[in-house]
Amino acid sequence: MQFHVAYSSYLNRPYTKMKALYHAIRDAIHEGNLAYGEKLPSTRELAATYHISRGTANQVYDTLTAQGYLHSEHGRGTFVAYQLDLSKDSSTEKAFTHHLSAWGNRIQQFEQQTTQRNAQTIDTTIESDAVIDFSKYQPDLSKFPYDEWNNRLYAEIRHREHHMNTTAAFVSSTGEPKLREAIAAYLRRMRGIQVDAGHIAVTAGSMQAIALLTQLLADPGDHVVTESPCYVGISQAITAAGAKLIEANLDGQGLVPQNWEARMLFVTPSRQFPTGEMLSLERRQTLLDWAHRHDAMIVEDDYDSEFRYRGMHVEPLKTLDKGGRVIYLGSFTKTLPLEVRLGYVVLPPTLADTFRKAQALYEPRPVNLIEQRALAEFMTSGQYERHLRRMNRLYSRKFHLLLTLLNQQLSTWFDWVENEAGLHVFGWWRGDASTYETFRASARSEGVVYSEVSSSTPEGTKYGIYLSFAHLSEVQLQNGVSKLKNAVTAPL
Amino acid sequence: MQFHVAYSSYLNRPYTKMKALYHAIRDAIHEGNLAYGEKLPSTRELAATYHISRGTANQVYDTLTAQGYLHSEHGRGTFVAYQLDLSKDSSTEKAFTHHLSAWGNRIQQFEQQTTQRNAQTIDTTIESDAVIDFSKYQPDLSKFPYDEWNNRLYAEIRHREHHMNTTAAFVSSTGEPKLREAIAAYLRRMRGIQVDAGHIAVTAGSMQAIALLTQLLADPGDHVVTESPCYVGISQAITAAGAKLIEANLDGQGLVPQNWEARMLFVTPSRQFPTGEMLSLERRQTLLDWAHRHDAMIVEDDYDSEFRYRGMHVEPLKTLDKGGRVIYLGSFTKTLPLEVRLGYVVLPPTLADTFRKAQALYEPRPVNLIEQRALAEFMTSGQYERHLRRMNRLYSRKFHLLLTLLNQQLSTWFDWVENEAGLHVFGWWRGDASTYETFRASARSEGVVYSEVSSSTPEGTKYGIYLSFAHLSEVQLQNGVSKLKNAVTAPL
Repeated sequence: MQFHVAYSSYLNRPYTKMKALYHAIRDAIHEGNLAYGEKLPSTRELAATYHISRGTANQVYDTLTAQGYLHSEHGRGTFVAYQLDLSKDSSTEKAFTHHLSAWGNRIQQFEQQTTQRNAQTIDTTIESDAVIDFSKYQPDLSKFPYDEWNNRLYAEIRHREHHMNTTAAFVSSTGEPKLREAIAAYLRRMRGIQVDAGHIAVTAGSMQAIALLTQLLADPGDHVVTESPCYVGISQAITAAGAKLIEANLDGQGLVPQNWEARMLFVTPSRQFPTGEMLSLERRQTLLDWAHRHDAMIVEDDYDSEFRYRGMHVEPLKTLDKGGRVIYLGSFTKTLPLEVRLGYVVLPPTLADTFRKAQALYEPRPVNLIEQRALAEFMTSGQYERHLRRMNRLYSRKFHLLLTLLNQQLSTWFDWVENEAGLHVFGWWRGDASTYETFRASARSEGVVYSEVSSSTPEGTKYGIYLSFAHLSEVQLQNGVSKLKNAVTAPL
Repeated sequence: MQFHVAYSSYLNRPYTKMKALYHAIRDAIHEGNLAYGEKLPSTRELAATYHISRGTANQVYDTLTAQGYLHSEHGRGTFVAYQLDLSKDSSTEKAFTHHLSAWGNRIQQFEQQTTQRNAQTIDTTIESDAVIDFSKYQPDLSKFPYDEWNNRLYAEIRHREHHMNTTAAFVSSTGEPKLREAIAAYLRRMRGIQVDAGHIAVTAGSMQAIALLTQLLADPGDHVVTESPCYVGISQAITAAGAKLIEANLDGQGLVPQNWEARMLFVTPSRQFPTGEMLSLERRQTLLDWAHRHDAMIVEDDYDSEFRYRGMHVEPLKTLDKGGRVIYLGSFTKTLPLEVRLGYVVLPPTLADTFRKAQALYEPRPVNLIEQRALAEFMTSGQYERHLRRMNRLYSRKFHLLLTLLNQQLSTWFDWVENEAGLHVFGWWRGDASTYETFRASARSEGVVYSEVSSSTPEGTKYGIYLSFAHLSEVQLQNGVSKLKNAVTAPL
């Protein structure tokens, strides 16, 4: 029987004999060299032709038959069963736009690849060592107790091996129970929130909570209130849900309450992001009353509550919430290494179960579980709070140095917010858009990078800049402020 | 000046002096003991009364003033600024039902807490050691190379410390680039898929991809086709998106194509879950043509493709996809320890960017990053494929033992699917609902647990069971089949 496929050329690839023959025959069919209905050699002949075992030949035919390329008739032989469609040359098919859902279309239009906070681009001719970058929102990791932390991680990894095949893997999507207990204890002790671990869900950073909560509470067309300016991830979540954004104004006491028709409100009461303003008690009560009247929910993002350099820690809005209207968000991004992506959400009991189901839809099992367990031990052992206290002393020095320098050298041009907490200093530009543009351009050529926001007010657009200092040394802080000073030599 | 708050009782709690005084005053205001407008002592008097420093007294007043509890007038003194609303006793507020979005309402109605696969409950009087549990979908971890794997994890953790404060944390949400490269190489070599790492997104298990893809492609009211039976997580994702489920029939060659009006289709072509049937080539082509005609997308879940005990690995549907209609899902849940939650999705180039944005909405940074990086090294070093080959030999022995036992002892009652691959064996019950119920009850009292499905056909409901064998020893497999045999002593 005359039969030839390019077996030997396939053998030169890193294929087994079986695989080489399979591909040789399959491709011959696809390329039309073996046509529909054509009879193939018996497995005995095939084995003889290609110096392979009968078993190998059988397996190749079985596979191709199972896939529908071949067809065997008992007593008659094996035939090509695949009909090539010559009318269609699929390789020339055009690229097309997928039909997307309404949600998909909204997502597709996002410009930002990530929810990273704004940073300017700077003059690339400046040597990178000379650039002072106030835009990085990073803790000072040079003081992080890596030995203690890594030992916790190693212990969790060793521990796993001895618990294989147990139900340990089937922890609820809301997170490692020990970590939820440790967070509850931390919140009771440090933030005054009376919370049951059962109402805490551990998340992979705050965005997961922000996106899921928006999806749970707001329908397309509903209104959601945010501070203006606010964290860019919040507006993305609102846009993704198809909801409409209401931007609430800030006035130096934080967000100005209004009688919004809205389903939910995002707010940063302890320290407004990014301006650093603190929401007054009266306004906190007004917001709670508003939520109660409108059957709305308030999402409190306590994003920067760990560090305070003067006075008492401000208690969260959640502590005033008797009616179950406040959802509280916290995270570890300011206190643990950047790669540890862990946050949490404290839910009103009435919403805890629904949130769990929403989270489990995407991730039925907890993520970052090595870190979740290590962190539980790190917290219950007291290592975490010791670390916070050490860092608070360190950041306090840096904060006061920076604020002093800014007030000495830049108070003519900026109005610096004095809330003595957190890992950045915020200042409003005292001039107009055109003087700000000049400043911004000069700052770039000086080689200093910072984050900026603009806010529309009845008097026109206001500009603000904020300077993250945690990751910078004292010398860098001094250089950075000098560069900013150099950028504002022109009078307002 | 007459002034008293319960400072000393607060001091007994683990409070600093400052915190004790703060809480004492704040609670006195909340409880109405310090009324609106009441004048407070000066900080000098306060310091003298409570034997604290003047600085502490100042900080307490500053904090309470900032929060809106107190108000200071220059030259006049400090006054209570908080007006208690006596008309409302918020502690008696009733529990309420939150207003949820349409999506939230659909999610809330989910009954399953997890997407864990079905398992019966068994007679609790049977000693747990004697129970044979075929329902666990777990690899045999006793043979997992924990030393090699743990060393990779340790190395990643050590490595982190030396890369702190770098951009290493800002890996795209689609996952560690080295892992995506390693997966692309694996897919090219082992599954015949020509894929660029840029079109792969790493996920935390398959559900994330299933849920996001459904949300991206299907609007509320759209139709989505699944196999019947199918993985429960798929129907949850469809329900969550508000889409309507079309259950396609299976007939022994896998799913039966029809001219559905639908936006997307979920299919397990290599090995139907759970029946184990393989989709014929002709049907694969029909599905691709259908997707092209209807502007629909096909999600191919290659959930169980790593292990095959006879013949060639079946090439995925994705290899036939010239028009960018197939989205391919893979995971590591059958090959790595249970707690390593990693999967991936291969996207058509036209959908890769949109998927990335959708994933980043919930998780702007990759999760399980220690494991992602360890796995990248594990794969590129060849350790992963060596592990697969070892496990394939081990599972092959278990599979053939189990299938032989089932065919010897239970072929009268069950029709066992012979696709020699994967980590479970599927059998259709040959009898009707009533005889199946009797069998199920007996199996429970024998102490054998398995997973089951039912499927509606024109001839009535069909029942099928599937037995996961990877985690069981050969002795357990023998005991398990004996127990099943004991449960079917009655003739059909």
